[in-house]
Amino acid sequence: MDPSFPRPLVMVDTALFTILDERLCLLLTQRKEPPFERKLALPGGFVHVDEDADTEAAARRVVCGKIGFDAPYLEQLFTFSGATRDPRGWSVSVAYYALIPASLLDRSQTAEAFPVEALPALPFDHDRIVAKAIERLRGKATYSSLPAFLLPATFTMNELHRIYEQTIGVRLDKASFRHKILEQGIIDPVPSQFRIGAHRPAQLYRLANRVLTAFERKI
Amino acid sequence: MDPSFPRPLVMVDTALFTILDERLCLLLTQRKEPPFERKLALPGGFVHVDEDADTEAAARRVVCGKIGFDAPYLEQLFTFSGATRDPRGWSVSVAYYALIPASLLDRSQTAEAFPVEALPALPFDHDRIVAKAIERLRGKATYSSLPAFLLPATFTMNELHRIYEQTIGVRLDKASFRHKILEQGIIDPVPSQFRIGAHRPAQLYRLANRVLTAFERKI
Repeated sequence: MDPSFPRPLVMVDTALFTILDERLCLLLTQRKEPPFERKLALPGGFVHVDEDADTEAAARRVVCGKIGFDAPYLEQLFTFSGATRDPRGWSVSVAYYALIPASLLDRSQTAEAFPVEALPALPFDHDRIVAKAIERLRGKATYSSLPAFLLPATFTMNELHRIYEQTIGVRLDKASFRHKILEQGIIDPVPSQFRIGAHRPAQLYRLANRVLTAFERKI
Repeated sequence: MDPSFPRPLVMVDTALFTILDERLCLLLTQRKEPPFERKLALPGGFVHVDEDADTEAAARRVVCGKIGFDAPYLEQLFTFSGATRDPRGWSVSVAYYALIPASLLDRSQTAEAFPVEALPALPFDHDRIVAKAIERLRGKATYSSLPAFLLPATFTMNELHRIYEQTIGVRLDKASFRHKILEQGIIDPVPSQFRIGAHRPAQLYRLANRVLTAFERKI
């Protein structure tokens, strides 16, 4: 192939979500360079062909460099492309998303979290990326163990119910939620462990071993 | 940005499926240039930044040029990338897939169809792309109207049931298939139209208007 063949710019962008004050929030960082210098944007950057094994490795490097922690996992969302999405030229952005525990944020000096209903205006086509990520997250959360990873190692059914509602952004009937979750085998009761509170003692649960193993294989 | 910054190669690859002789088949074309000259491979090609509006437009151009017909629609599958997947260098391939009516193939002089269980060895990482496409197709087909687009404008419930089974590659209980399809509102009965055969007359159906409209919006 003719090496002078014009090539697109290739970058990665990441949509990282967490739950803060019971609301689904998105992490943004301030851009340090033009275009859109000093604007809040999705953490992103160019692929470094001499350094990154693939675009997922590039996304991990970007998250670590711009936010300051290792993302526990990243899922590929969609690839956005075209002549007009970036003023620097024809570009391809491979977008990734993740749902991360709020505790990880303590390690970040640079990320700012915004509730998804109250995001600032975003540069490039980042609003499209965010809309797609929220759609995927909510579609996926309803039938996956994803939101459960936001909780500590043991939790009650009420706590699990609440974190799913917060992620998905809709009310879920408690009885059918409980039935569905137990049927899917995502969680196991911790034998003889209960949370003592104002009400009657609540059974504690943890993620099922097969879910944790599958998750660790992904990391 | 420094224009001498090395940029990855950017290409598109397409996994086009159809049903032939009641089997799910994949279209392959012979490569005309190195690497892997004369090998059968997924139809693909480089993004042309001076010509393509985005990677989907590039995929449409490639399908039209390499196979000879306009794809009725293409869905983005996944983006494959890395230093080693293409001997020409660090590359990104945005992969697309579609399920196309066999009648479209009459217009192609160049495509060869292979049952998905009997594919030849494929170059690059095309086997990974194909595996992912089959997984997505089968996962999606079970709850979408996708396979129905392979049928003519009117069809019986038995014909619809068969095309879903062929796409998904598993047996589907007839009664619960019928119940599910009617519940989803994907199809409507054609008033007073029946197929007369060896058995009792079978009601004819067509795709519901809302499904057709959504599909046309996508094209």
